[in-house]
Order: sequence, then structure tokens, then C-alpha cells
Amino acid sequence: MSKAHLGILGGGQLARMLALKAHELGITTAILSEHPGDPAAQVTNLWQQGRTDSPTDLKRFLSSVDLATFESEFLDAKLLAKLSRESKVGLYPRPQHMLRLQDRLTQKRLFLKHGLPTARFFPVNRFAQAEQALQNFPKGMVLKKRRFGYDGNGTFIIRTRPELENVRSEIQTNAWGFIAEELIPFERELAIMVARSRLGEAVALPYVETFQEDARCLWVRGPLKTSTGLAQLQKKLLTFLAKTGYVGTMGIELFDSGGEVLLNEIAPRVHNSGHYTLNALSEDQFTIHLKAVLGLAFSQVKILDGGFAMYNLIGSRTGEAKWQLPAGVALHWYGKSENRPGRKMGHLNATAATPEKALQKLQLARLKFKL
Amino acid sequence: MSKAHLGILGGGQLARMLALKAHELGITTAILSEHPGDPAAQVTNLWQQGRTDSPTDLKRFLSSVDLATFESEFLDAKLLAKLSRESKVGLYPRPQHMLRLQDRLTQKRLFLKHGLPTARFFPVNRFAQAEQALQNFPKGMVLKKRRFGYDGNGTFIIRTRPELENVRSEIQTNAWGFIAEELIPFERELAIMVARSRLGEAVALPYVETFQEDARCLWVRGPLKTSTGLAQLQKKLLTFLAKTGYVGTMGIELFDSGGEVLLNEIAPRVHNSGHYTLNALSEDQFTIHLKAVLGLAFSQVKILDGGFAMYNLIGSRTGEAKWQLPAGVALHWYGKSENRPGRKMGHLNATAATPEKALQKLQLARLKFKL
Repeated sequence: MSKAHLGILGGGQLARMLALKAHELGITTAILSEHPGDPAAQVTNLWQQGRTDSPTDLKRFLSSVDLATFESEFLDAKLLAKLSRESKVGLYPRPQHMLRLQDRLTQKRLFLKHGLPTARFFPVNRFAQAEQALQNFPKGMVLKKRRFGYDGNGTFIIRTRPELENVRSEIQTNAWGFIAEELIPFERELAIMVARSRLGEAVALPYVETFQEDARCLWVRGPLKTSTGLAQLQKKLLTFLAKTGYVGTMGIELFDSGGEVLLNEIAPRVHNSGHYTLNALSEDQFTIHLKAVLGLAFSQVKILDGGFAMYNLIGSRTGEAKWQLPAGVALHWYGKSENRPGRKMGHLNATAATPEKALQKLQLARLKFKL
Repeated sequence: MSKAHLGILGGGQLARMLALKAHELGITTAILSEHPGDPAAQVTNLWQQGRTDSPTDLKRFLSSVDLATFESEFLDAKLLAKLSRESKVGLYPRPQHMLRLQDRLTQKRLFLKHGLPTARFFPVNRFAQAEQALQNFPKGMVLKKRRFGYDGNGTFIIRTRPELENVRSEIQTNAWGFIAEELIPFERELAIMVARSRLGEAVALPYVETFQEDARCLWVRGPLKTSTGLAQLQKKLLTFLAKTGYVGTMGIELFDSGGEVLLNEIAPRVHNSGHYTLNALSEDQFTIHLKAVLGLAFSQVKILDGGFAMYNLIGSRTGEAKWQLPAGVALHWYGKSENRPGRKMGHLNATAATPEKALQKLQLARLKFKL
């Protein structure tokens, strides 16, 4: 490799952290985003103003880079496939994976095809299908928009007939349709990052426990003790990457219902549940993603302490954020112009002898932030 | 703290690595440098074209930031003191420390004043003084330009009268003068980074061994076992920081002559001998420098493995650099436009069970780089 020009579609925090790590690796990095103050736009001199859904902007952007990646899978995958082909600029993860995974229904069908355990589900395009699904799932179901859902947006938990009535108009008006999944009475949620490179190398990072508040990730801690079941699942996941010819990192959210672990959702990109890697592992998810996309050899990943944790800094009001950074924790701020309730403003990382102690450090540190 | 605007004077690799870490801490960072392709200019959208020796450029730059730091101590310290006062923008380390430390003679006198061990020396302004110095140092001496020396530039080893004759015209024409230091027959060279924050907190990072080739740092390894003598010296160094009211990191180069350890030179900034910290410690020298300058609490610094090493990637020819990044090492590339013999293009870091094993990894990895 000599000087590579990487283009990142999108200007949020994931693009920002990718760009920061790309600089270290000597990868000249351009950002395509709408506003000059976007998180990733601040950390490069190669920002280009444009929309990731505009064929003209995308075409211009791709013509200025050697290869490209993205921070959100909710793009027009078919358009990207066409532009990538025409401009001869590789886009990783590949557009066909983006297409398959951006839709909850095709994503779930992919799990089944590859023998990956997941909750039962039905496609729901009409209200009658939702009624039928609820009859099949007497303990309740989760109704999810097939596309563009995130952090609980586009997700409804339905246990009763009246609850179903409440979303009747949602179902009748949504163009992309829904899927209805059996509600899993899980004990906790887990996550794991996996990655596969253009060289065919694959790696799995440690399993972690994730905690959601208001359907948004609040914290992560790990590493989890790997049971036989989890080890087998990890093996399946790496086989899944190989069989589908996947390139890049992949964030995998799991339900742990005691005995059984089921795949909830996967995202073909770096993931919030992997932000802990910046301080807890010998190599972080952003570097791993870049290596995957560029075809560089993976390193053996070491866990640097007995335990680690990540705590999201989420805005709860409007106006400027203020803080006094306490000792013993690492801050990763996203450079967003101002607070907004529910907005991810940054995150804190810590390591300690145990996951619990690392999380405790962060819970105390969080009190020093006015967001 | 809320959003801080930090200005960095200079656009080289030290400024680049400071800016990358500043982004993580949510510090909006502006760079003043001459060329848009400078290493640090690439990693921010707030680059300003200008010279760090131009009063006009400096004044304009300082008016756009809340506080400032620098990557080279060879600036006009008196001018900076005046501009910092007038613009009410704090510059750290403070201009008076820059002034004192940028001159080898006043630096050495500062060592004496604070009881820090160092080789004997004489000021040399005229050739006759150099002759006298050589008589006092029968085993040889090192003649150093008082100002603007770096990586062996402006340094002459003189053992004999004919060798002295060779630099006669240098001595007679240099405006800043020289110092003559007793040549120390050292066994090895060591280094240590120390830092003190605006809160008055001080920290010392581990002692390391450094290896020079052609008077330029080639590698660093550590941590060194701390003898009683080294522990005492560390204490003295922290006292020195406190007594002088120093703010920022300081790189300290040492001679280890077996029994005795002497200060060679110090630099009021992040330092090449501290680049290992990016992967070997729980907090790196750039983050520590930023915390010092901003007045943020230091963390307890942990060494993440049994040993670590850093290997400089130095250009040996002109043209484009090429490499295949091997596994198990971390690359920190500086984004320089092209190779040049002797130019520091980047560095590699690794950790391992011992310093020796870490260095060995890097020596092998270095073979993958065509520079």
C-alpha cells in the first residue's frame, strides 16, 4: 500500500472515529456529508459537501477516492452498486450486503439461511398479517419497520389487541412494510463485533453485555465469560462472514434468554457496542474495519485489563454541553454543535480489574457531565 | 470545560498527533502552518495558513483561539509572550520556559540551579574559548549550537585539535554562540517524559532506553527497571517542574554512564521518545499534554504489557513510501507528501512480554516498509 484515498459516506461520529484512525494508518480520508460542522467534517481537510442520497454528489465524491466505506447502511444500495461499478471504486462492505442487511426481513431470512439462531418472525405488509402474527405469538411480539429503524425508532412492542390497534395506521401507511418478531423474554442483551478482511481473514472480538435505556444503548461492559454455546455461535458467525464473502466489521446484537442466545439485529459497520475497543483492546474496531476494507493483516487482539466498560453520553436537554473530565476515564467526544435530548454526544471508556468496576468508574464519571 | 478552541503553532507530526487526540477530547483544534499538505493541516478543518515566525500571522491566529500550545520550542519566545499577553490567550508551556529551554546555555544553567545532574560545560562564543574547553576536557567534548539544533544538527564531537580546526569558521560565524560539553562515555541513552498541569498535578512516565543512529532517534524500548538512582532523579525532575511553575509535557534525554545518569537535553513539548505511549500506556503523551494545558485531571497511567517499543520510520530515499502493514504492530503515519533521506515519516509501536520482544517485532515489521 502507498497513500490510499478513502472516502467515507456520512459525517457522524462513526465516520469521525473511522477518520481519526485512518489518519494514524496514513490513509488520506475524505468525508461526504451535508454540513461543515458535522462530527467527521471537523477532522479532515478533505470534506466534501453533499448528500449521501444524491446520485450527483455520490458520483462526484467517488471520483475523488480510491475506495469507500459508509457509516450507515440505510443508503440506496442499488445506486451505490451502480456508481461503484461505473467509477471502479470499491465500496466495502459491499452494496449487496448493505441491501440485504438494511431490510429487517431479508436480514432475518439470511439468518435462517445460515443457521443463525433468531426469534421467529412473519412479514407484515397488511394489518391482517399483524393480527395473525399476534395470534401466533401469544406472549407478545415486536413489530419493526423493515427499513430505517434505529435506537427503537420504528419498533413497537405489542402484547394485546388494543396495542395492535394503536399502530393500525402506521402499518397501513408505511411503504416498506414490517416484520413481526416473537417477543423474547431475555435476561440481558449481549453484543459482539466480528470482522472479515478482503484477505479473507476473520476475527471476533469479545462478547459484551449491553444495557439499553429508552431503547438506546446506555452502556456496555465485558468481557463476558464465553460459554460453550457462545463459542459455538462465534464460530457460526465467522462461517457466515466467510460464506457470504463479507468485508468489513459487523455489529451483532443478541438476546440472552438464559439458556439460549438469539440474534436480534446486525449492522454492516462499526457499531456503538464496539466503542469500548478504543481503550480496552490492543486494536480498536475502527482500525479493524479499515484493515478489513484495505486488505491489511489483522493483529491478534488482546484485552488490556480484566474488565472494561463504555458509557454513552446522551444529551438530555438543549444548549451547550459542559463537563469536567474526571481522572481514570477516556473521553471520546463527537464534536456535535449542541445538545439535544436523546442525542449521542460522545462516550466514556474505562478499564479495571472487572467489568463491574469499570462500569462503576463510568457511572461516577457521568455525573461530571451536564448534557 | 465546554467547547475549547485550541491553537497549535506548527503543522508537523507532533501537532498532528496532538490534534488527533484533541478531537477525541472534544477540543476544537486549529493549526497554524505554512502548507495545506502539512501533517497536522490534514486532520482539521481549522487550518490557517501562516508562519510561526510572522507577528501578523501569529496575531491573527491567536485571536481565533482560546488557548495555544506549540510543537517546536524554537520560536520567538519574547514575541509570543507579548502577543499572548495582548490577545489574552494563554500559551502553554509558557513563553518564559520556551525562552529558557530553547537556548542550550540557559537550559544547562537551569539544570545547575535546580541540582539536576548534567555534564560539565562552558559557553563558547569565540574560538579561543573552544580551545580552552578542549584543554579542560581531555577525553573530548561536544560542541553544540546554543539555538536551533536538533537530531544532531548543530552538534560536533571534538576529540582532537585538528577536529577543532574543522569547525573554526562555524564558531566564528554563528550568531548565537555554542556551548562545549564534556564528552560522556555513556553505556546507553535513556529518556523520560514528565508533565505538570495547570492544576499543579505532576506525573512521570516510565524510563525508556533510546537508540540513536546518525544522531537521530531510531528506536525506544521500555519500561526500564527503576533503580534507586533513577527514582531519586524522577523525584528531582518533578520538583523541578513544580518550582519553575512549568505547564505541559517535557521530554528529557539522559546519558547512562553505568553508575551515573546525567541530563543531556530537555524539550518543553511532546517528544519522539514518548511516542511509544500511544499504544503502551493507558494514557498517551499527547492526551497528557492536552490535559496539562487545559487543566484537566491526570489519570493514573498504567503500562499495558510487560514491555513496549517504538521504531521510527525514517526515509532513506526520495519518492513515494510504500508498505504492507504487518500484523501485531501499530502504525502512526505522519502524512508527509513524500520520502526524503533522514525524514521521519511515521513510527511503529508494539507491546510484548518484554521490551526486547517488542523491539524485535518492530525490527521485523520495519522490513515491510520501503522508505
